[in-house]
Amino acid sequence: MPGATMVKRHLNDLRGCFADTAAYEAALAAGNPLLYSVGAVEPADGEGDLHYGVGLLMPGKIGNEYWMTKGHLHSWRPAAEFYFGLTGEGVMLLEDEATGENRIVPLRPNGVVYVPGRTAHRTMNVGNTPLTYLGVYPAKAGHDYSTIARKNFRCIVVERDGKPVMIERPS
Amino acid sequence: MPGATMVKRHLNDLRGCFADTAAYEAALAAGNPLLYSVGAVEPADGEGDLHYGVGLLMPGKIGNEYWMTKGHLHSWRPAAEFYFGLTGEGVMLLEDEATGENRIVPLRPNGVVYVPGRTAHRTMNVGNTPLTYLGVYPAKAGHDYSTIARKNFRCIVVERDGKPVMIERPS
Repeated sequence: MPGATMVKRHLNDLRGCFADTAAYEAALAAGNPLLYSVGAVEPADGEGDLHYGVGLLMPGKIGNEYWMTKGHLHSWRPAAEFYFGLTGEGVMLLEDEATGENRIVPLRPNGVVYVPGRTAHRTMNVGNTPLTYLGVYPAKAGHDYSTIARKNFRCIVVERDGKPVMIERPS
Repeated sequence: MPGATMVKRHLNDLRGCFADTAAYEAALAAGNPLLYSVGAVEPADGEGDLHYGVGLLMPGKIGNEYWMTKGHLHSWRPAAEFYFGLTGEGVMLLEDEATGENRIVPLRPNGVVYVPGRTAHRTMNVGNTPLTYLGVYPAKAGHDYSTIARKNFRCIVVERDGKPVMIERPS
């Protein structure tokens, strides 16, 4: 994607995200694979401008949790985000910041996921092939990773009988 | 696309858009085909929300001008729009409202066209197959069709030796 700033996240960047810490440490001891990369384009920063990016999330699991992105809120909380699936089979985990409600929605080729404002969002690859997707958001959205890094999502998504299922995070 | 409001535009809705009025009247006398349809989704209308749509523009020509959309400015002029090509071969005509400068950019599968604010934009199908594309824009953008309906774009796009070429609109 022309003009994109690339960010790459390896397994060691995801410390604290996976519930199964023993499986995480075992995987990290065996290697530090690239989990995902995001190319972001910021054409302009005016009030009505938009930024956009393409995400590439590889398939894999830690224990029975799918490889995932760190997840984020927008620094400007009212900012929504438009996701559009390009390839592969994904799931997005959405957490309403006000109510704490969690829900999952499929992210599939030619399918839209609309993430409302004030909603933490994380992407998971639940298939066996690379997941690629578009994201479009207001230029002034900004990314707040620290809130999720501190308290994580309330739920996790695990594979049960070959399918993604959302459950409460084990305490 | 779930929840979409559909708009359909036939040839008779495009009166005044094509430079070759004789060819337009002759085509209209022979029939009134569907030129394009747009499905728009408006999930919410808050300050940070986004609206989006999918356009389907059929292939065809009036004289040597490609079938096109009416084109529009955003009512809230600072609003940009993100276009993403899905299928077919398109061109977008962009006119800077302040300077009157016109330019064309290709709209191709998996390619992005970023339309800045204060820029009139029109889509043309320059191929032989249906052109489909995504558009994402701030919820408060709004559509101003009347400015273009009154003064049109300064340039037109015609086929020359099988390729789209932008020229000044004949007076």
